[in-house]
Amino acid sequence: MKEIKVGLLGLGTVGSGVFEVLKNNADEISRRSGCRIRVTRVVSRGLDAVRKMVGPDIAISEDPFDIVNDPAIDVLVEVMGGTTVARDVVLAAIARGKQVVTANKALLAVHGNEIFAKAREQGVMVAFEAAVAGGIPIVKALREGLAANRIDMLAGIINGTTNFILSEMRDKGLSFDAALADAQRLGYAEADPTFDIEGVDAAHKATLLASMAFGVPVQFDRAYIEGISRLAAEDFTYAGRLGYRIKLLGIARRRADGIELRVHPTLIPERRLLANVEGAMNAVWVKGDAVGETLYYGPGAGKLPTASAVVADLVDVARMTDVADEHRVPYLAFRQDQLQPVPVLPADQMETAYYLRAQVRDEPGVLADITRILADEGVSIDAVIQRQPAEGEPTTDIILMTHRTVEQRIDAAIGRIEALPSVPSSVVRLRVEQLN
Amino acid sequence: MKEIKVGLLGLGTVGSGVFEVLKNNADEISRRSGCRIRVTRVVSRGLDAVRKMVGPDIAISEDPFDIVNDPAIDVLVEVMGGTTVARDVVLAAIARGKQVVTANKALLAVHGNEIFAKAREQGVMVAFEAAVAGGIPIVKALREGLAANRIDMLAGIINGTTNFILSEMRDKGLSFDAALADAQRLGYAEADPTFDIEGVDAAHKATLLASMAFGVPVQFDRAYIEGISRLAAEDFTYAGRLGYRIKLLGIARRRADGIELRVHPTLIPERRLLANVEGAMNAVWVKGDAVGETLYYGPGAGKLPTASAVVADLVDVARMTDVADEHRVPYLAFRQDQLQPVPVLPADQMETAYYLRAQVRDEPGVLADITRILADEGVSIDAVIQRQPAEGEPTTDIILMTHRTVEQRIDAAIGRIEALPSVPSSVVRLRVEQLN
Repeated sequence: MKEIKVGLLGLGTVGSGVFEVLKNNADEISRRSGCRIRVTRVVSRGLDAVRKMVGPDIAISEDPFDIVNDPAIDVLVEVMGGTTVARDVVLAAIARGKQVVTANKALLAVHGNEIFAKAREQGVMVAFEAAVAGGIPIVKALREGLAANRIDMLAGIINGTTNFILSEMRDKGLSFDAALADAQRLGYAEADPTFDIEGVDAAHKATLLASMAFGVPVQFDRAYIEGISRLAAEDFTYAGRLGYRIKLLGIARRRADGIELRVHPTLIPERRLLANVEGAMNAVWVKGDAVGETLYYGPGAGKLPTASAVVADLVDVARMTDVADEHRVPYLAFRQDQLQPVPVLPADQMETAYYLRAQVRDEPGVLADITRILADEGVSIDAVIQRQPAEGEPTTDIILMTHRTVEQRIDAAIGRIEALPSVPSSVVRLRVEQLN
Repeated sequence: MKEIKVGLLGLGTVGSGVFEVLKNNADEISRRSGCRIRVTRVVSRGLDAVRKMVGPDIAISEDPFDIVNDPAIDVLVEVMGGTTVARDVVLAAIARGKQVVTANKALLAVHGNEIFAKAREQGVMVAFEAAVAGGIPIVKALREGLAANRIDMLAGIINGTTNFILSEMRDKGLSFDAALADAQRLGYAEADPTFDIEGVDAAHKATLLASMAFGVPVQFDRAYIEGISRLAAEDFTYAGRLGYRIKLLGIARRRADGIELRVHPTLIPERRLLANVEGAMNAVWVKGDAVGETLYYGPGAGKLPTASAVVADLVDVARMTDVADEHRVPYLAFRQDQLQPVPVLPADQMETAYYLRAQVRDEPGVLADITRILADEGVSIDAVIQRQPAEGEPTTDIILMTHRTVEQRIDAAIGRIEALPSVPSSVVRLRVEQLN
């Protein structure tokens, strides 16, 4: 039986999961692939612990380039993370003609264009199912399963940490800070959670999804990114009264004049499946012109789920090592020479509906002033809630849902609303997507 | 650019969808596949209408074997349906070395072992993404996306007609007959709906899913099949009170001693995503040992969604026509010589939890008699509801939820319960799955 030799770079959570899955399911994987996929070299810090985990028969060392320089190795599995050493090692492996499987979304979102171009030159594969939505085979769905479609839009819950926090805020009425503390205590959030809660991780993934959906180069630096750290508990309550839930979505949308690529908290109707994805789970909703709506759900992180995606890539790569490039699925779904430089639209040109919450003095005419400003700016209103103030309370809340409009109109309207003497504090603005 | 010539057998709903998608998205498909995929021959009845639809440049005729006998054709797309002529044509095409793409679940569930064996001998592909769950790329997910996993269980809403009827029964409190009439009026059910409502169509699809999940030959004749036509409106009410919804599921489950392959109405907890799949939509829940739970959702039928799956298969096939068999994904996920003859367990050995509804005389001691019988048979009880009878009403309902047990124990218990003088009519028995 053909044997594929793997060099495993990183033996942390994901790396040890990959090792475990390849070992536990070796027979099943061979029955599927017709190959024996064997880890022959592991690079990781802490050699004593590594030796204990991998047993006596596998070469171990601490220098990532040992994998690149081992001529017997067919495939580099990069599950170390980071965008500096990882980039150098991946490029060096490609230069040596090795296949690459990686779980590294940051690396590909930032350096993908360079990496895919070099891989194309060398005729090697770069597989990255594990980089987006963990165990969910969404890369395969977008690149292959929906290949007949012109993709119109996708929207994904692609960061488990933030989805866990948002679920806690809604279910338990917690503040953001309290829900974050829960997430940290339970291991769903890191000690420094910035990358997750500010939407950067989701934007890396959305960048890759957008490229595969529309056949465009990765454009992470053009993504609009807004995290969840400023969300207030009362917005979950008002959203619920209006029939919506708040989720951090990574969204890619095709427009005639470009694409939208954005990550932000989003109100979505509570009857949509995506609104009911709770805790640390992920899901991606994709709308194509032929298929209509589809959704893919599963664990977005974790040792074995991520390993499931890495090993699925290994099976694909093992099957196709000796096959010419033209027979392989292109990195970003479209053939490298067919990517089109469609621009990502600037934030003020994005189109969505909006949820606005204004704290207002309890005076007659405030609602009329606000709705007049929105009308002036060409923003039409879908629904209004005005909270009944408690006896003697000097201010109250007005909540407005708008129809779809261009962001710059809302910006202009908010500026004017905040200038009203009856509006003492800044207006909360969240985006709304119907997903239909 | 390489050109792949397609012979399209059938120009009904799906066939015309395939034609339309290939035409409308030709550029996008070429950018993805690096090939031009072109229909060069169409076989269908009603040549005038066919000519009008396909234009002047495509050969048309009424004999299915014209595609087989056309040496220029690379791929047969079989979207005609049926298991007699379709079988002959598919086998003849395989014998001539043509690739096959089919949407025909009945054909593959019944004749799959023969067809795949012949295809293996001839070294041709038989792709069938459209045969299960329409536009959802579930075949690809099972065969490739989850290739690292030992699949434990899958459960799918894989028949849109029945899911539409069940949604109507629950939402509107309709009887089965009334909901079926609605479905027929709206085009979701055929004039003769037997295949759908009695679960046969779902069993065809579940048979294919089970084979791909576990690496076993297709065993349609061993599937347990129970449809929805005997469901009563009150069971939806009681299920709702217990926190459950009723769905027709196709289930495949791995056991130490064999596999379960069954289609039946099933109570599932209302908080599961699968319970919230409404109307004619489909979804398949898959649990693997590495990935955990995943779910795939989308339209299970219809012109363009089904065409989306057929054309995705065409893209895969186009890429791999000149490539040796060992590089291709096996028909049933596992290599043909690695399928294992694991038996489908007989119905009385299936294990699930149960929902039982007994109409009982409003007399003291009835509940005690029933619970005593269940205890005698080794069935433990999870929850009981006893409906308060209206003033003067001689009978009432007792609803019991059991823990998991073997079907033959429930059968024995039901036999004894129905023999009680205080139980005047037969006991309603539905299966329950927690999907966790």
